[in-house]
Amino acid sequence: MSRIAYVNGQYVPHREAAVHVEDRGYQFADGVYEVFAIHQSRLVGEKGHLDRLAHSLAELRIEMPVSRRVLGVITRELVRRNRVRDGLVYLQITRGVAKRDHSFPENTESSMVLTARQSPSLDKDSLRRGVGVITLPDIRWKRHDIKSIALLPNILGKQQAQEAGAYEAWLVNDDGMVTEGTSSNAWIITKDGDLVTHNASHAILNGITRLSVLEAAAEAGVKFVERPFSVDEALQAKEAFVTSSTSHVKAVTSIDGKAVGNGHVGELTSRMLDLYVDFIEGRDGPQKTDTWN
Amino acid sequence: MSRIAYVNGQYVPHREAAVHVEDRGYQFADGVYEVFAIHQSRLVGEKGHLDRLAHSLAELRIEMPVSRRVLGVITRELVRRNRVRDGLVYLQITRGVAKRDHSFPENTESSMVLTARQSPSLDKDSLRRGVGVITLPDIRWKRHDIKSIALLPNILGKQQAQEAGAYEAWLVNDDGMVTEGTSSNAWIITKDGDLVTHNASHAILNGITRLSVLEAAAEAGVKFVERPFSVDEALQAKEAFVTSSTSHVKAVTSIDGKAVGNGHVGELTSRMLDLYVDFIEGRDGPQKTDTWN
Repeated sequence: MSRIAYVNGQYVPHREAAVHVEDRGYQFADGVYEVFAIHQSRLVGEKGHLDRLAHSLAELRIEMPVSRRVLGVITRELVRRNRVRDGLVYLQITRGVAKRDHSFPENTESSMVLTARQSPSLDKDSLRRGVGVITLPDIRWKRHDIKSIALLPNILGKQQAQEAGAYEAWLVNDDGMVTEGTSSNAWIITKDGDLVTHNASHAILNGITRLSVLEAAAEAGVKFVERPFSVDEALQAKEAFVTSSTSHVKAVTSIDGKAVGNGHVGELTSRMLDLYVDFIEGRDGPQKTDTWN
Repeated sequence: MSRIAYVNGQYVPHREAAVHVEDRGYQFADGVYEVFAIHQSRLVGEKGHLDRLAHSLAELRIEMPVSRRVLGVITRELVRRNRVRDGLVYLQITRGVAKRDHSFPENTESSMVLTARQSPSLDKDSLRRGVGVITLPDIRWKRHDIKSIALLPNILGKQQAQEAGAYEAWLVNDDGMVTEGTSSNAWIITKDGDLVTHNASHAILNGITRLSVLEAAAEAGVKFVERPFSVDEALQAKEAFVTSSTSHVKAVTSIDGKAVGNGHVGELTSRMLDLYVDFIEGRDGPQKTDTWN
């Protein structure tokens, strides 16, 4: 079966999915994106993704090309056509095709592209194998709350992490505080057993998995604080982990080569993974109202 | 005559010029660009552009897809096919098409796209009509020396300028210093008659027009200093202007609505425009060795 993509109103073979070279996404990174996890044929955190998409688009004054309802239909149709049971849907919306000029074009329709792919299903054992992170200066622009495609600093950071044998790079701002990872949110668990992750602001992308973990923590009575933490504090922490639509809740056992806690995956991290999986599987939380079928 | 573009080895009608949706330029802003001015059928500052392109690509470890010589042949062929006498060539190189993943793909060939367009010829009278700029916080990432396509903050700044009735936005860093405009370098002329523009560093893009103006100034014995200047200093300046491949040397007569000097285009700005035009027309400077024919 060949993969199918959606490009501006049409379902096309993935290999033929193309956009014009003057699409502003290509020339100016003038667009936003979302990555939806598909878990057991269900779209995870759909409302959260759509709310954030609306925020990103509004901040950039890019028009949503279709209604939420229609986007839901397209997304499900794409999942169906690609027979994805576990995997991802990637959605990108840009300001559209126009003669190259920095300022916004008039009368240009935004572009919308979706791709889908199968990937291994969520595997708790694999997620419970700890990974290492490195720390890097946060050289990104100052509006991380917008999920823009201007990801060049993120990919450079991720590449540095990979070459250092690490899973992710945690980005450190001028005040020495960890903002987030290049494609995930950063968490620590203090000696007192509190979850800590950077508060939602322009400094981080407010991850859908981050929000789900916070909600799952609240329901289970796990204490959490949303505030910045320093690299030093992270090195003194009992446990650490990262969250994202593709990493779910992934244990971090070393930072810059130094062990976090006893260097093994901690109890609370492991519990948060269980709570999160329960949450997205709809035994708890708002996901059970998902209209996926 | 229909416009022709160059896309990965082929000359194609401009309207059909397309790239795959998984080109990393589209999904990650993982690429760089150059804009060459064509003046009287000559490529302006070709060596400078190619040197800077090599710098940008090296910093991002993207492979140059063709040799400089071949790129020169393609550029000239595109100018010829589009019958451009005065105008622009836009060149973009990205890390190529790969399955979406932040870290660099292996065995992927970089993508190269060129477009060309005719535009009104350099008009000294028009350039001598002063324009206004506004000032905005510089929220961009910290590697402005790389001419990347991650231009989202730049277009947002340019749009704000346009909506304020201004020509450009000057970007002000956390120390209150003007780094540059969203798509041009910023200059002032002090009461002592010195040209001042931000020194080349990670904080600015080292414009080819900027370099030509510096060289023309040196040849003509005009004093200049490369250093940051504050908004206050700019407001106290005698004259101001911006430079870029498309703005050439353009007089700035107001900043945030306040007049620069007497509010009229100044003598030295006007002289710098003449010196610059002489320079690129090859009566002075290295351009006369250009092999354009």
